[in-house]
Amino acid sequence: MTKKAENKNPNKKNQNSSSHIVSKLIFISAALIGLLSFYIYNIITIPPEVPQFDLNQWWGPYPIDLNRDLSIRPFTIEFTDVIINDLRERLLHRREFTPPLEDAGFTYGFNSNFLTQVLDYWQNKYNFKDREQFLNRYNHFKTNIQGLDIHFVHVKPQVSNHIHVIPLLMLHGWPGSFREFYEMIVKLARPHPSYNFVFELIIPSLPGFGYSEAPVRPGFGPAEMAVVIRNLMRRIGHERYYVHGGDAGHIVGSVMATLFQDEVLGFHTNMPVLMYHPLATAYTLLGSIWPSLIVEKELESRLYPLSQHFQRHLEESGYIHIQATKPDTIGAALTDSPTGLAAYILEKFSTWTNYEYKKAADGKLLMKYSLTHLLDNVMIYWATNSITTSMRLYSEACSKRNLALKLDQIPTNVPTWGIKFKHELIFQPDSLLRLKYKNYLHSTIVEDGGHFAALEMPDLLADDVFEAVDTFMEFHSGKNLKQETQVQPNYETAKTIYEFTVRNINGKDVKLDRYKGHVLVIVNVASQCGLTDTNYEQLNELYERYAISKGLRILAFPCNQFSGQEPGTHREIFNFAKKRNVKFDVFEKVDVNGDNAHPLWKFLKRTQSGTFGDFIKWNFSKFIIDKNGVPVERFGPNVNPIDLEPHLVKYW
Amino acid sequence: MTKKAENKNPNKKNQNSSSHIVSKLIFISAALIGLLSFYIYNIITIPPEVPQFDLNQWWGPYPIDLNRDLSIRPFTIEFTDVIINDLRERLLHRREFTPPLEDAGFTYGFNSNFLTQVLDYWQNKYNFKDREQFLNRYNHFKTNIQGLDIHFVHVKPQVSNHIHVIPLLMLHGWPGSFREFYEMIVKLARPHPSYNFVFELIIPSLPGFGYSEAPVRPGFGPAEMAVVIRNLMRRIGHERYYVHGGDAGHIVGSVMATLFQDEVLGFHTNMPVLMYHPLATAYTLLGSIWPSLIVEKELESRLYPLSQHFQRHLEESGYIHIQATKPDTIGAALTDSPTGLAAYILEKFSTWTNYEYKKAADGKLLMKYSLTHLLDNVMIYWATNSITTSMRLYSEACSKRNLALKLDQIPTNVPTWGIKFKHELIFQPDSLLRLKYKNYLHSTIVEDGGHFAALEMPDLLADDVFEAVDTFMEFHSGKNLKQETQVQPNYETAKTIYEFTVRNINGKDVKLDRYKGHVLVIVNVASQCGLTDTNYEQLNELYERYAISKGLRILAFPCNQFSGQEPGTHREIFNFAKKRNVKFDVFEKVDVNGDNAHPLWKFLKRTQSGTFGDFIKWNFSKFIIDKNGVPVERFGPNVNPIDLEPHLVKYW
Repeated sequence: MTKKAENKNPNKKNQNSSSHIVSKLIFISAALIGLLSFYIYNIITIPPEVPQFDLNQWWGPYPIDLNRDLSIRPFTIEFTDVIINDLRERLLHRREFTPPLEDAGFTYGFNSNFLTQVLDYWQNKYNFKDREQFLNRYNHFKTNIQGLDIHFVHVKPQVSNHIHVIPLLMLHGWPGSFREFYEMIVKLARPHPSYNFVFELIIPSLPGFGYSEAPVRPGFGPAEMAVVIRNLMRRIGHERYYVHGGDAGHIVGSVMATLFQDEVLGFHTNMPVLMYHPLATAYTLLGSIWPSLIVEKELESRLYPLSQHFQRHLEESGYIHIQATKPDTIGAALTDSPTGLAAYILEKFSTWTNYEYKKAADGKLLMKYSLTHLLDNVMIYWATNSITTSMRLYSEACSKRNLALKLDQIPTNVPTWGIKFKHELIFQPDSLLRLKYKNYLHSTIVEDGGHFAALEMPDLLADDVFEAVDTFMEFHSGKNLKQETQVQPNYETAKTIYEFTVRNINGKDVKLDRYKGHVLVIVNVASQCGLTDTNYEQLNELYERYAISKGLRILAFPCNQFSGQEPGTHREIFNFAKKRNVKFDVFEKVDVNGDNAHPLWKFLKRTQSGTFGDFIKWNFSKFIIDKNGVPVERFGPNVNPIDLEPHLVKYW
Repeated sequence: MTKKAENKNPNKKNQNSSSHIVSKLIFISAALIGLLSFYIYNIITIPPEVPQFDLNQWWGPYPIDLNRDLSIRPFTIEFTDVIINDLRERLLHRREFTPPLEDAGFTYGFNSNFLTQVLDYWQNKYNFKDREQFLNRYNHFKTNIQGLDIHFVHVKPQVSNHIHVIPLLMLHGWPGSFREFYEMIVKLARPHPSYNFVFELIIPSLPGFGYSEAPVRPGFGPAEMAVVIRNLMRRIGHERYYVHGGDAGHIVGSVMATLFQDEVLGFHTNMPVLMYHPLATAYTLLGSIWPSLIVEKELESRLYPLSQHFQRHLEESGYIHIQATKPDTIGAALTDSPTGLAAYILEKFSTWTNYEYKKAADGKLLMKYSLTHLLDNVMIYWATNSITTSMRLYSEACSKRNLALKLDQIPTNVPTWGIKFKHELIFQPDSLLRLKYKNYLHSTIVEDGGHFAALEMPDLLADDVFEAVDTFMEFHSGKNLKQETQVQPNYETAKTIYEFTVRNINGKDVKLDRYKGHVLVIVNVASQCGLTDTNYEQLNELYERYAISKGLRILAFPCNQFSGQEPGTHREIFNFAKKRNVKFDVFEKVDVNGDNAHPLWKFLKRTQSGTFGDFIKWNFSKFIIDKNGVPVERFGPNVNPIDLEPHLVKYW
């Protein structure tokens, strides 16, 4: 199960290779039989029905309190002096650690040398009062649902009338908390230049986590949790809303999208995966022989070789195993020792952010996070003494009772959108996700990032949530999502660009009338051009300066017609743009010259002819479009974006 | 993975049963293919060779200390005031526990209500100084092996010349310690009435456990540990010796019996199991279709249904999973908190003693153990702060490097003897054990007891060690072990009972000349007779009174010829006797009357005829044999054993 050291095995190589062939044969046969049998099984059975739950089940101590307060009460987080002094005392008197093995890094778990640094920081430098204030920067509330006091953060943006406010439930995971989302809140609750809506955020502490009370009896699994959270949304006044989740938040969110298909308007997840789905498992096994059957070529390495991924999973899943079986035992230790709690929680923030980090003596924890932010999250577990109850969720999720519900095998029609970070613990291809999510609209593939995306890449994740919800809304409004070719207008007779439809980088049709009333810059881009650096940088600058103040929008169209300087797939182009922190809109690759040129570009060239002929000369040709959708000026590749400023002024 | 609550699954029953059949089919096919393939694999490969190890590999910090002290130094265990005060302080200031879920018992891990009782006892009632003295009642030593200070208990019995002193190495497991064996020491190091030898005991703390130092770099697995322990035995002066082990002690002992086949004279284990043996696994799978292929009928339920045992194993192996992957993380918590340490260790003493104990609120911990004894063991981990290094053994044992050695697949000729307690975590039939242990001589089956046999049933385990080593010695002296029928003398002409051979309850031939010089009582017994209680009780009493002082021996022969009052199998009879705490010798069931009567009994009846005819009238007929092997008196069933006293006196 572990790592290191050279193989001292005295056996001959050829024995290994022949055994390798045999074991491969076994494996293939077993997979085939499994799949065949499951096919039969599927014919003779029907998919599981949606189970019914008592929506008012009582989870507090008996007797049921019939006169309980059902109001929503304001709540303030307090790190009292009692908590702080006790904690500092424990940190000061912590027991001498066992030194790590030589050069072990994080491969045997949290490196105790580095742990010393973390604890010293917590004890002496972490500013409890400042952090308390930081956590209280948003409004907190508590309200009693089914006998449990449930805590939540509630952010209601104040925006002008023409901006829609959309309710979004955000569900954290383990060992996370509502704190994970703080960096995203800023982004989600403020108007986004590309969308005409913002989010009203409801961010609960899951029951048994942080400031939410835990059930007092067995049987409170993800489904029961989903019911409580759904009732919380109703208490707040939302009967229909969007849901985002990752980790345990993904699981609970997925159950909500299964049990409450008329209430959840869309489900966005950064851990899109079916945990228990035999057919998906069979396909995954089969895919190790024919990967193309289930996974795109460029993502194959995220799933295969299966043995390698399985081994990693085995290596990283000890916590699941013990939490699913003995949460109270390990809980006794983590309750009593802040040292143990920090090690147990923060180890995950190293290895789950990137598996390779375990080779480093400091687990590269500080490469992506600050100790202050990491300890905010640990403090929430410590101050509320909720680690034991949080771990019990694994016992409930793995109970026979819960598994028999087969929640992952019950289809849902709720539109679903996943974002797949490179170092996420589990990867599952869209083809398998569609076994459950009948309207799985899209996967965003990110060539960076890990399990704690909200904390690690908040901007990117927030952008993805915006785009997903925008798509969910289109889905509900019945707009075409099947990507049949749109009827394009005749570029010879068209009057404005609003008549044209283009595809965004995720392959989704975008009618340009969404840009009505905005001044636009339309530009053809490439990733490997001599002009790339300057242009991307200055386009960004232009955008930052005028997007909000003046409503400027920039539409970039990758094009590979100039010395093949944009050879990549959409995904690669997307990642290139993400890396450069591009905020403006990047579309699908198009031709700009020739018979196959996109009608939009034919239109642009017709209405704004060029100096030495209408054809586009090179990457980074620019057009200005006025607020009526009419192309009004054209500039060659040699004109820097920033030099468009004096021209743009004329049109807003 | 867990327990409890009623299945709320809305699916119909018949779906389940059809899926059950299909999954059974899959399972069978997979097992068949696996076995077939493995058969091929076996043909094209040869068994792994015995790997060579550097017998002087250095495990301490570099540079190697060439002038280090290689002597054996006396050592005393000290629970200093610093340790005690610090510990009491921590126990006093322990943090409030999360209450257990309603009626959860130990099913979510250590019940925190009961934990409070344990910790209060530790803090206020555990007598540290007394226990320190108790632990020091035997001689402790330390000596440096390969850079590590290794601690061991050394018990050298002082006995008269005609008693042989046999060196026995005893290896504890995790989370055990040398302390586990204290109740057995008394028994093993004192002359046993049935054998002419006693044991010199060497009981080390495994490296990284308790008072033995831990290696400072990765790569110290069971094999490397076996080398160190073997070198310790040489340092003490033993080049050939017997080994007993359980749990990790079984694993290390098994490796010693593999690597040092000329040094280990016999291997006794109370956890006889091959951990990684693909063929054994394949057979085990196959056995779920044809159990009789690999396991005796009466033991079938210890292995099948496999799914049930596998699930239990899954439920109980979370600790292995986390210790094999993140020992240092969990170690940080257990190092810092005596609360956590006690919960983590003592949970095992509940559930591993009997799986059913987890239903009880107190884990029935006190049913088999006292808190004092349990805390002795916890104290050893606490005082030495060795929990982290002890857990690292799992990482090393599960490393690719160690698994590639395939140590479980390398055959050994060392005679091996297992004792199988009813509630041991894993059961493996003898047929599979023989894949490795080519001279697997015997399994003792016990219908009681669990994983911590040394602590739970020390007398029974010690008796078994005696019998095993006696058999090992016979094995080495070339005596017949194949159990071919012995040539019995003609009972008409025989002079003494010494000429006869009988079979003991384990089916092993015993020539009666081993009783030369002893006065004997020979009696036919039965378990379900009205006379049973009185007779067993008084035979025990007689034996206790005169076995050591006068050399009295009692030979009991179960017989089913009187109203079928001894219907059981040998195993059942054995267990019946064990339950009644029988110390004297019980033999295989025989006929005492009729043509098929055992020749010994024909001889007894010929030489001592009965009042109303020679035939045996009922259960519990008794013969006295003098020191020359001659039957001298006969008593009917109605004579109580204790009434033989005045008669026996005449013959010693």
